[in-house]
Amino acid sequence: MGTTPTASAATRQPGRLQSDTASGVGPSLPAMFDRYRADLEDALSNAVPPLESHAVNTLLRYHLGWSDRHGVPSPSPASQGKALRPTLCMFACEACHGEPRQAAQAAAALELIHNFSLLHDDIQDQGAERRHQPTVWAVWGTRPALVAGDAMQAIGDMTALHTGDGVPAATAIRVSGLLTQAYLEMIEGQCRDLQFEQRATIGADEYLDMIALKTGALIRSSLVIGATIATNDAQTGDGVARFGRAIGRLFQIRDDYLGIWGDEAVTGKSTDSDIVQRKKSYPIVYAFQQAAGASRDELLRLYAQETLDESDVEQVMAILDDLGAAEQTDALTEMTAEEGRSALAMLELPPWAAEDAANLIDFMAYRLF
Amino acid sequence: MGTTPTASAATRQPGRLQSDTASGVGPSLPAMFDRYRADLEDALSNAVPPLESHAVNTLLRYHLGWSDRHGVPSPSPASQGKALRPTLCMFACEACHGEPRQAAQAAAALELIHNFSLLHDDIQDQGAERRHQPTVWAVWGTRPALVAGDAMQAIGDMTALHTGDGVPAATAIRVSGLLTQAYLEMIEGQCRDLQFEQRATIGADEYLDMIALKTGALIRSSLVIGATIATNDAQTGDGVARFGRAIGRLFQIRDDYLGIWGDEAVTGKSTDSDIVQRKKSYPIVYAFQQAAGASRDELLRLYAQETLDESDVEQVMAILDDLGAAEQTDALTEMTAEEGRSALAMLELPPWAAEDAANLIDFMAYRLF
Repeated sequence: MGTTPTASAATRQPGRLQSDTASGVGPSLPAMFDRYRADLEDALSNAVPPLESHAVNTLLRYHLGWSDRHGVPSPSPASQGKALRPTLCMFACEACHGEPRQAAQAAAALELIHNFSLLHDDIQDQGAERRHQPTVWAVWGTRPALVAGDAMQAIGDMTALHTGDGVPAATAIRVSGLLTQAYLEMIEGQCRDLQFEQRATIGADEYLDMIALKTGALIRSSLVIGATIATNDAQTGDGVARFGRAIGRLFQIRDDYLGIWGDEAVTGKSTDSDIVQRKKSYPIVYAFQQAAGASRDELLRLYAQETLDESDVEQVMAILDDLGAAEQTDALTEMTAEEGRSALAMLELPPWAAEDAANLIDFMAYRLF
Repeated sequence: MGTTPTASAATRQPGRLQSDTASGVGPSLPAMFDRYRADLEDALSNAVPPLESHAVNTLLRYHLGWSDRHGVPSPSPASQGKALRPTLCMFACEACHGEPRQAAQAAAALELIHNFSLLHDDIQDQGAERRHQPTVWAVWGTRPALVAGDAMQAIGDMTALHTGDGVPAATAIRVSGLLTQAYLEMIEGQCRDLQFEQRATIGADEYLDMIALKTGALIRSSLVIGATIATNDAQTGDGVARFGRAIGRLFQIRDDYLGIWGDEAVTGKSTDSDIVQRKKSYPIVYAFQQAAGASRDELLRLYAQETLDESDVEQVMAILDDLGAAEQTDALTEMTAEEGRSALAMLELPPWAAEDAANLIDFMAYRLF
């Protein structure tokens, strides 16, 4: 591949800038998300064995949006979201002068591992809907959904092990190790998140450590794995990891912002849902840390309840406003974006890749969806 | 290692023979189960990271019997059972002229993957006790237990990937692939087993296919992985797999027998529990297939109930007696033991290993515990 991007890379549009946020448009999805989609979808459909072979596959294909609950293929299996992690993996491979197709298997593995976590998260959070359709546990029950998650994970591992195609065995092992380490960290983050639910208050640092594991590890590793396939060089991996840590935090902190102040029509999620669900996302954690006297007692009282009604939500929103939680969340986002930009500057990527990566930071920091 | 067994192997006692069953003693645990214990326990304790590093580790170490629910180390962490799978792995490695210690990592991985399945099975079956202590979900709840299972699996994968120590990368990948394929089959078996619960009757062949996946795959692969580390030769692997298939089926069918007709004092399990739990184990599947007229209607009625009381259990036992279900189960066991012996004969193992393997077959077929 060398330093020249793939054909489609040449035709990408530049990412929007922060100023667009004011205009309510927000940055568009960076071009990299289209560039690798075809290769990724090939790798993914090859990774998940055909229906007839395994009873569990109906559940997997349903979760992935490929078929309905009866196994009938979906007309447009487009409900698969942005495919953030595999896109980052293939981008990092090409940006580090690798052949992106060599990273397609690992990229598919990352998407499968992400989906394994979604299957189990939906059981844990009793989430009834995912990607505009009932969740697997809601359709088949908890026990089959648990098994389906385990199967999704196993298929993800298997896919990573077969990175093959010109990738040396030692590199393939390293890639599988990076992937496994990443989801072990993801699982540890999940475990800490569950512990947080039992506690009245959480420190902001504890929260940031938790999301660095639960959400950050797989995002960071997506970039590191792509770079490793291209270079198998630990130093490049470290530099990419610094960039990836920033991307992972940006993703979650912006998600936390949109979960409270996002425009429902744009995000497609109920904006008060994070508060209704008493999610201890960053703005709430910050508020608990900052609140004093009456407003602190009020927050503690509200979050001690089983459920929050509309007026409770309004009260929480008012306290968040008083404490400037939105501004603080934006400030953390801006600081993290800067960390990402300085990590990027040290990577010495080819110009097209540096521009793509800069657009990625803007998108992660300022996206409205 | 060559063809000579390890020091401890030289001092092993010969396994008991079938005739002992009549005397009510039954075959003793083959010597191989002691031979590799020390190396295996080293590998296992190195595989599971120390407590402080991960919040989830308390649950893992508790499940493994290493510490209590507060993380306090157990005085005698002996509650870990026979460690069948890792023992088979290290035995197969040494029997195929390999250095058994080179298989210790993979053996530990197999034990961790087995324990991952136990953690999730206990959630699914709502089993309250395991190894004479409350199950993880019973202590911490379903959600932490689900996460702990995922973590156990991830650590198992990681352990297999680090097979290292003189094992070529290509072999390590092959070993990880065999392990992942095995637990993917295990998961598929679990999925079919769940489907069976929804059905009134199951064919004996369907049942045998299911247990070949749910129980058989990991047992078979334990032997294949050990042989692969020793020889990295596909042909040896195929021969060992034939032997392993027999061992896996023997294990489950004998388990099914003991689950109904075993001596509670010896097995440590409530013997009627399989019937009370309406488990569709082999004798029941056979009975459904053979029963006609009134007794078939009776079985269907009994198993359509939510729970079976004492008199229901007696009725089921009576029907099983009428249909000769115990004799049929023994006949299947004997047939499978013969398959194991003929597979063994083709393996051309060193004499000490052939004797060990023959003792293993006897133990699996005629054990009373």
